[in-house]
Amino acid sequence: MERIGVLTGGGDCPGINAVIRAVAKTAINDYGWEIIGIEDGYLGLIEKRFRRLTYDDVSGILTLGGTILGTSNKTNPFAQPMKIKKRIVFRDFSKHCIENFKKMHLDCLVCIGGDGTLRIAYKFFEKGLPIIGIPKTIDNDVWGTDLTFGFDSAVLTATEAIDKIHTTAQSHHRVMIVEVMGRYAGWLALCSGVAGGGDIILIPEIPFEIEKICARVKERNKKGKRFSIVVVAEGAHPRGGRMVVQRVVKDSPDPLRLGGIGNLLAEEIENRTGIECRVTVLGHLLRGGSPSAFDRILATRFGEYAVKLIKEKDFGEMVALQGREINSISLKEAVSQIKKVPLNHQLLKAALSLGTSLGI
Amino acid sequence: MERIGVLTGGGDCPGINAVIRAVAKTAINDYGWEIIGIEDGYLGLIEKRFRRLTYDDVSGILTLGGTILGTSNKTNPFAQPMKIKKRIVFRDFSKHCIENFKKMHLDCLVCIGGDGTLRIAYKFFEKGLPIIGIPKTIDNDVWGTDLTFGFDSAVLTATEAIDKIHTTAQSHHRVMIVEVMGRYAGWLALCSGVAGGGDIILIPEIPFEIEKICARVKERNKKGKRFSIVVVAEGAHPRGGRMVVQRVVKDSPDPLRLGGIGNLLAEEIENRTGIECRVTVLGHLLRGGSPSAFDRILATRFGEYAVKLIKEKDFGEMVALQGREINSISLKEAVSQIKKVPLNHQLLKAALSLGTSLGI
Amino acid sequence: MERIGVLTGGGDCPGINAVIRAVAKTAINDYGWEIIGIEDGYLGLIEKRFRRLTYDDVSGILTLGGTILGTSNKTNPFAQPMKIKKRIVFRDFSKHCIENFKKMHLDCLVCIGGDGTLRIAYKFFEKGLPIIGIPKTIDNDVWGTDLTFGFDSAVLTATEAIDKIHTTAQSHHRVMIVEVMGRYAGWLALCSGVAGGGDIILIPEIPFEIEKICARVKERNKKGKRFSIVVVAEGAHPRGGRMVVQRVVKDSPDPLRLGGIGNLLAEEIENRTGIECRVTVLGHLLRGGSPSAFDRILATRFGEYAVKLIKEKDFGEMVALQGREINSISLKEAVSQIKKVPLNHQLLKAALSLGTSLGI
Amino acid sequence: MERIGVLTGGGDCPGINAVIRAVAKTAINDYGWEIIGIEDGYLGLIEKRFRRLTYDDVSGILTLGGTILGTSNKTNPFAQPMKIKKRIVFRDFSKHCIENFKKMHLDCLVCIGGDGTLRIAYKFFEKGLPIIGIPKTIDNDVWGTDLTFGFDSAVLTATEAIDKIHTTAQSHHRVMIVEVMGRYAGWLALCSGVAGGGDIILIPEIPFEIEKICARVKERNKKGKRFSIVVVAEGAHPRGGRMVVQRVVKDSPDPLRLGGIGNLLAEEIENRTGIECRVTVLGHLLRGGSPSAFDRILATRFGEYAVKLIKEKDFGEMVALQGREINSISLKEAVSQIKKVPLNHQLLKAALSLGTSLGI
Repeated sequence: MERIGVLTGGGDCPGINAVIRAVAKTAINDYGWEIIGIEDGYLGLIEKRFRRLTYDDVSGILTLGGTILGTSNKTNPFAQPMKIKKRIVFRDFSKHCIENFKKMHLDCLVCIGGDGTLRIAYKFFEKGLPIIGIPKTIDNDVWGTDLTFGFDSAVLTATEAIDKIHTTAQSHHRVMIVEVMGRYAGWLALCSGVAGGGDIILIPEIPFEIEKICARVKERNKKGKRFSIVVVAEGAHPRGGRMVVQRVVKDSPDPLRLGGIGNLLAEEIENRTGIECRVTVLGHLLRGGSPSAFDRILATRFGEYAVKLIKEKDFGEMVALQGREINSISLKEAVSQIKKVPLNHQLLKAALSLGTSLGI
Repeated sequence: MERIGVLTGGGDCPGINAVIRAVAKTAINDYGWEIIGIEDGYLGLIEKRFRRLTYDDVSGILTLGGTILGTSNKTNPFAQPMKIKKRIVFRDFSKHCIENFKKMHLDCLVCIGGDGTLRIAYKFFEKGLPIIGIPKTIDNDVWGTDLTFGFDSAVLTATEAIDKIHTTAQSHHRVMIVEVMGRYAGWLALCSGVAGGGDIILIPEIPFEIEKICARVKERNKKGKRFSIVVVAEGAHPRGGRMVVQRVVKDSPDPLRLGGIGNLLAEEIENRTGIECRVTVLGHLLRGGSPSAFDRILATRFGEYAVKLIKEKDFGEMVALQGREINSISLKEAVSQIKKVPLNHQLLKAALSLGTSLGI
Repeated sequence: MERIGVLTGGGDCPGINAVIRAVAKTAINDYGWEIIGIEDGYLGLIEKRFRRLTYDDVSGILTLGGTILGTSNKTNPFAQPMKIKKRIVFRDFSKHCIENFKKMHLDCLVCIGGDGTLRIAYKFFEKGLPIIGIPKTIDNDVWGTDLTFGFDSAVLTATEAIDKIHTTAQSHHRVMIVEVMGRYAGWLALCSGVAGGGDIILIPEIPFEIEKICARVKERNKKGKRFSIVVVAEGAHPRGGRMVVQRVVKDSPDPLRLGGIGNLLAEEIENRTGIECRVTVLGHLLRGGSPSAFDRILATRFGEYAVKLIKEKDFGEMVALQGREINSISLKEAVSQIKKVPLNHQLLKAALSLGTSLGI
Repeated sequence: MERIGVLTGGGDCPGINAVIRAVAKTAINDYGWEIIGIEDGYLGLIEKRFRRLTYDDVSGILTLGGTILGTSNKTNPFAQPMKIKKRIVFRDFSKHCIENFKKMHLDCLVCIGGDGTLRIAYKFFEKGLPIIGIPKTIDNDVWGTDLTFGFDSAVLTATEAIDKIHTTAQSHHRVMIVEVMGRYAGWLALCSGVAGGGDIILIPEIPFEIEKICARVKERNKKGKRFSIVVVAEGAHPRGGRMVVQRVVKDSPDPLRLGGIGNLLAEEIENRTGIECRVTVLGHLLRGGSPSAFDRILATRFGEYAVKLIKEKDFGEMVALQGREINSISLKEAVSQIKKVPLNHQLLKAALSLGTSLGI
C-alpha cells in the first residue's frame, strides 16, 4: 500500500477540493492507498503538520470553494522569509522538508498549485522526491496545459459581474472599468471581456496606448452609444510604461492603499474625454465560490490522472489538458515559462472582428 | 385621457424598468392613458427630451437591470451646476421645467428615485405640479416605506459575494473585509452581513472602536478560527471619527484615487493584529443586474399603486410598503428625514445573540 | 441550565439549517444552554435518536440547504402508520414520545416544520409538553405569519426557471406551462408568476375556466405574441372540477406515473388551440439549494426569537413575522386554518392590471 | 458586397444569438457585407420571410437566450409534413427554397442548428447552394466538433439543479432521480452527473441493469449513506430493452401524458428496494437562459470563423472546435453520424474510479 501526500499551495481557486477528492477517492477505490493531507501548503511540510484523509473526509467537498487542507502563499521552503532581530532573512528548509517527507512515511507527494507552487515542487523532484504536480490557477498561465482548473469559474464570475455593470453603464452614460486578476497573462481579461461584450479589453501582453482607448470611447459616443465597458487585467500597462500594482503610501497622513491600473485608467480617461468613469475591482471575488461544472469535471479528471501517474511511478510530471485528452508533461517543461496569450490567438482576432478595441 | 410623465433619477438600481412597466401597463390597460417617458431624469425635463412609451416598449423589460429612460444623478433643476467662465455657478431651471411640463401636455409626473430625486419631486409638487413619488434605492434609506425596491437585489448580490469570499478566508487564515454601499444607513451592510454570516458588521449608525474589532479578530484566532469576515458600510466610521469617503490626491506623482473605509480598516487591523487583511469593494456590482423576484414584485406593486393614486388625483404622495400593504405617505413626510437603522432594531439584537460583533 | 430539543419535520425547505443555527447559537451565547438535536423529525422522538449540537456543529451551516438533523415527512406519533401482517394500522406513540422527552431530560422542544409538523406540535403542547413552533414551508401557507422561511428561496428558483423558459417560448411560438408546488395555496405560483411575467397564472383559490385560458392564448397570438407563459400551482383545478394530483396506474402495461395539472392543461390547450405546449414541473428543485439572503435573515430572526420565547417560558407559541416585527401567535391559532391567497389581495389586483389572466 | 443569409433551426439552445451577433458583426466590420435574417428556420425559407439585420439589431443580444430569428423544429423542406384532407402527406419544397434563396439575392446561407438542421443544410449544399453550417445543440452530439455551443450552459444548469437536489436527498433519505436531455448521446448526463457528484449515471451508450442500480443503492444504505443521486439521460434504457420516451395514452379516462425513463426507474427502484424515490425532469430548463461565458466565447469564435469560410468561399463546411482551435470539417462528414460517448472515454473511467456506478 502506498501512502500519498497531498498539499495545496498559493492563492485560492475554485476546484481545489474537487481535485483533493478525486485524488483521494481514486487512490482509495482503485488501489486501497492511504491519503495524507499536509496542512497549509509547504508550511505544513516544514512544520510536519498533516492528517489522514478518509473516504468520508473527502465526501461532499466536490462543490466547496477553498481548500480543506488550507494553504500558504508566502512559504518557500528553499528560501523561507523569517524575521530575525527585525531583519528579514531567508532560510533553506528543503532538507528539513525532505526529512519530514520520510518521517511521514510518504511514497509520493501531490502538489496542487500555480506557477510558484509547481516551481518549488520541481525543485523537490530534482532533490529526489517523487512528485506529481497539478496545475491550479484562475489566471490560466501555467505552461503546458490548455487550461487550469479554476479558470472557467473565474471567467464565469467576471462575466456575471460585467453583465451587471453593463446595465448601469447604459443607464448612466459612463465608462465602466472592470479590473480583473492577471498580472502577467491576460486570459481572464480576454475571455471575460469577450464573454461580457467588453468594448475595450486590455491585457499585459499588448501594451495599450491611452489615446487609442480614449479615441474609441469618443467614437462610441458619437455613434450614440454613450457608454463603454473596459475590461482590464491588473497587469495591463501602457506602451513603454510599466506594470502598476497596488501600492501603499506609508508616510501619507492616513496610511493609504492606492488603486491599481483600473483606477489610473479612470483618471486618465476622465481627464482626456470628460466622460465620467467608474471602476470595479473584482479581486478576491474571482477566487472564491463553488467551482463551475466545467472546473469540477476538469479537477476530477486531473485528480484521477494524477493517481494513474503515481501508479506508473511516472514522477516529476504535471497533469495537463491537451485538446480533449488529459496527459502529462514534465514539471521541468511546465515551469520553464509562463503561458501568455499569444499575439496570433484566434480569440484576439475574433475580438477585433467583433469591434472590440485592444487599446492599440 | 390622461397623459402621464415618468422619469427616473439617481444612481442605478435593480427594478426601475419593472416599475416603469407596471406604471405603463396599468395606465394603458385599466384606463387607456398615454405614457410619456422623460429621458435622463430631470435633465430631460430641463431639455424637453421625451418619448411616448407604447405597450410594446415596456414589454419584456421586467427582468432588465438599469432604466430604459436613462438617468442623471447630478442634475438638480432648482440649483443646476453649470460651468461659466471656468467657475461653477448654480442656476434655477425649475420654472423652465414647469413650462416644459405644460408644453408636453402632461397631466402628472411620476418621479422614480431615491432621497435626492424625491426631494426635488416634492419641491415641484410645492410649486404646483401633480407629482407621484416612487422610492428607489439599494440603500433602503427612504423614510416612510418599510422597503425600497432594489434593496433585496443588492442584499442578494452582496451575500453571494460574501459567500464566495468566505471560502477563501477559511483556506488562507485571513481577515476578509467586504465594503458595501450605504453612506448614511447601514441596512445593506447589516442585512448582507447577517445573511452572509459576517463575524463583524460595521454600520454608520454605530461608530465602531477599532480596539473592539481587533479584539474580536484575535479572540476568534485563539478559538482556532483563523479567519474573520468583516462587512462594512462605506459610511461606517470610528467613534469620534468622521466618515471616510473616496478621495483623490491630485498632487501626488500619479493622480491617485484613495481607498475608502474598507482599505483603512485593513491597514489598521493588519498593523494591530499582524493578520493579513484583504479588501473587496463591491461598489457598482450592487446596483446592476436583473432584479430579484422580490424586487420585481415590489416594483410591480409600487407601479400599479402609483396609477391608482393618479386616478384618485392623490398627488404629492409617495407609494410605500407598510407591513404587507402598499399604501402611500406624503412626499413632505417622506423627505423629512433619512431612514436609518434604529439602535433597537430586532436584527441588531439577533446579530449580537448569534455572536456577531458590531465593533463596540 | 436548560436543555433544548430541536426537531425538523416535513418536506425539505431552504433555511432549516439557518434556523437550527440561530436557535443553537443564541441559546449557547446568551444563556449557555444545551441544544439536543432530535434526528429525522418525530421519528427520532419515537425512537429516541438524538445528539448534542455544539457551537461548532452549527457553525458554517447557515448557507446549506436541507437539514443537518434529517426529517421524516410521513411520521405522525399520534397515528403512526405501521404494516402489521400486510395490513396498515395506525398506532399512537404519543405517550411513548412524552416519556422519551423526559428520558432525554429536555426542558422544551422546538418544532420546525409546516402545517403538519405544527399540528402535531400543538397536540404535544396540549398533552403538556413545553413546545415552541417555527413555521417552515416553501408554500407560505401557514396561518398567522406574513411569511414562512423557504418561500422567498422557492420564488427565486421558480422565477429563474420561468426566465429561462421565457426565451424558449419566444423563439418557438409555444405555450410553455410551468407547474410549481402549492397544493392548497397559490402563493408560490402567484409570486413567481408575477415576478416571471407570466401571462396566465392559475392558483387553487381561483378555479379556472379552460375556455378563458385558451381565449387568452389565442388573443395573444392575434396580437403577434405567439407565445404564452402559464404558471400553474399543482393544486389548481377547473371550476367545478377537482384537484389533480400525481397518480400511478398500476395495472397498465408499464407501471406508469401520470402527470399532474400541468400535463393535463397542456393536453387541453393543444387540443383546443392547436398550439404546441410544453410542460416543466419544477417539483423538488424548489425545495433545495442554499437559502436566499431574505430567508437566511428571516430564519435567523425566527431562531433568535424562539429562544426568547423559551426564556420567557412562553410555550405553545409559534414565532411569526407580522409586518416588520417578529412576534408570536398561539399554536392553537396557527394550526386552525391554512393561509390561502385572499381573493382581494393587492397582488391579484396588480397582476390583472398588468394584463395577466387568472383563468377566469 | 456579399449578402449573407442566416437561419436558426431546431430546439432552443443558449448561445444562438451570440452566434448571429458574431456572424453579423464580423461580416459588417471586416467586409461591409449585408446580413439577412431568415425567420423561423427553414419555414422562413419556404415562406420567404426575412429581414435585414443591422449592426444595431445584433448589439446587446450576446447575453440573451433564445434566437431573435425564431426557429421551427418540425420543418423539413425536403419532406414537409402537411395535412391534406385529414391525412398527413409530405411535400418537397426544396426547389421552392432554392428559388427563394435566389429571389432574396443571397450569396450564401449560414445554417445554425443541430443534427437535423445540418442534415438539411447538407442536402441544400448538394443541390448547389453555398452553405456554411454551425453546430448547435445542448446534447453535444454533432460529429466532428469537440463541443457544440449550448452544451456548457446546459451542463451548468443541470449541475446547479443536481446541487439543489443533493441537499434534499441528504435530509430525507431518498433516491433522487434527475432526468436530463440526451436521446442518443449521454454527454449531458455524464458531464452533469460527474460535476454534480451523482452516485449513479445512466447514458444511452451503456444499457443498464436495474439489479446493478438497486444493488448500488442498497450498498450505499448499508454504509450509512441513506441517499443516492441518479442522473439519467432521457435515452438511457435497460440492457436488452428499448428507449422509453414520453407517450400519451389517448384512450385513458383523462388524456394522459406519461413519464419517461426517470419515472420508470423510480417505480422499479422503489419496488425493488423499498426506498422512496423522487424524480425531477429538467427538460426545457436546460435549453433556456443566458449562455455561459464558455458558450458565449465558443459561439463568438464559431460565428467569426464562419465569415472567414465565406470569405474564402469554402462552402459545404461546418465550423468545429478541434482541441484549442476553431477549424472546419465538411458537412458531409459532420452529418455522417452522431457523436456518442465512446466507451473508452477518460471521463467514464474517471467516474468509475471515483466510485460512480454506470448501472452495469
